[in-house]
Amino acid sequence: MADNRRLLLLSTSTVFGSGYLEYAGPELRDFLHGVGRVLFVPFALHDHEANARKVHARFGSLGYEVESLHAAGDMQRAIRDAEVIFIGGGNTFRLLKALYDFDLIDVIRARVGEGMPYMGSSAGSNVAAPTIRTTNDMPIAEPPSFEALALVPFQINPHYLDPEPGSTHMGETREERIVQFHEENETPVIGLREGAMLRIENGSCELRGIKGARLFRRGAQPVELLPGSRVDLL
Amino acid sequence: MADNRRLLLLSTSTVFGSGYLEYAGPELRDFLHGVGRVLFVPFALHDHEANARKVHARFGSLGYEVESLHAAGDMQRAIRDAEVIFIGGGNTFRLLKALYDFDLIDVIRARVGEGMPYMGSSAGSNVAAPTIRTTNDMPIAEPPSFEALALVPFQINPHYLDPEPGSTHMGETREERIVQFHEENETPVIGLREGAMLRIENGSCELRGIKGARLFRRGAQPVELLPGSRVDLL
Repeated sequence: MADNRRLLLLSTSTVFGSGYLEYAGPELRDFLHGVGRVLFVPFALHDHEANARKVHARFGSLGYEVESLHAAGDMQRAIRDAEVIFIGGGNTFRLLKALYDFDLIDVIRARVGEGMPYMGSSAGSNVAAPTIRTTNDMPIAEPPSFEALALVPFQINPHYLDPEPGSTHMGETREERIVQFHEENETPVIGLREGAMLRIENGSCELRGIKGARLFRRGAQPVELLPGSRVDLL
Repeated sequence: MADNRRLLLLSTSTVFGSGYLEYAGPELRDFLHGVGRVLFVPFALHDHEANARKVHARFGSLGYEVESLHAAGDMQRAIRDAEVIFIGGGNTFRLLKALYDFDLIDVIRARVGEGMPYMGSSAGSNVAAPTIRTTNDMPIAEPPSFEALALVPFQINPHYLDPEPGSTHMGETREERIVQFHEENETPVIGLREGAMLRIENGSCELRGIKGARLFRRGAQPVELLPGSRVDLL
């Protein structure tokens, strides 16, 4: 069966010292080639209006129209009609709860399977994975399940952070948390540093952007990946 | 009705540069006055045996016997017979799932209501709250609910971290995460810095230890608390 999936999964919307999605402009244009209008999913942040305005401004500056899902009369239909969907960052638990509350899981999954391009950033990348079990977010809201969109067969850890030399903090490092994940789960995890992103199309997954990633498989040493690498995870 | 609760809730088991529970020795002795044997709950870490050995060594050096719950034939009975219970740190989601899996929520709650002293550290402090919605941990395991022991009527954020000056990381600060919690929830949150702890007895809650805390109420400015403060949260 043909693999029609097209995804762009960003670690973060913003890197230090630049504006919202500023660093990602060339990647967005390349990925969105031929698209006129972006359907934005604002539910990871509390203030949907403010979230949508920010996205509208940024995508407008790149020449795209933006519709925000919170303002759609019929959300399911808006997704069925969308050219491309962009799920933005914020809190992953709140986002996933909204996807369940509005019954959007199946329709998004079906549309991505048909080839509708999917862009996610941070929480929007977390929910593209089989589960949200590798989010960094605080569980401020309780979704009915940790199972997510499962658009890819691996877990994503966005905002991946290397251990800080000389830290006196006793909480777990990010790598220690992912090792704990693998005490309980089998699925590989890719830790995307801020500025890194994955582009999935034609049945292939490539690491892109301005930073590298770290790939964790259960029982194996972590592997460093540089932008431009093909990632053997599909 | 008399409030028989006695709790000691630690932010962390270990502060930088010293051994397991070393900094907390005088507080433990004071809290455990008259106790001979501690029932330890090791489920927040994957390796229960290694976890129990560490606790055995530390409490042994202070003159207490330790029984670990994972080795008890009848866990409910072990809790009913316990002089004091200590729930150690690790991953809060894994810990809470185990408390549900082994059907321990009600029996612990009942015993603490009767006056059995409760000690928690990190994840063990998180589960003393009404929910685990203010844990810092990665959701590596899925408990049937985020509702926890509700031994106190407020939320705890252990390992509380102040924003790092000059950080270039774009993930949320701890304070931003707690503000997000209050976008979705009403319950007050106390952020305990590593080395801080709460002691609850005689219907009163006192901040103790070697570091302060930060108290967050919905819609109000956060308040700084110093060790020795009475905390108006019960």
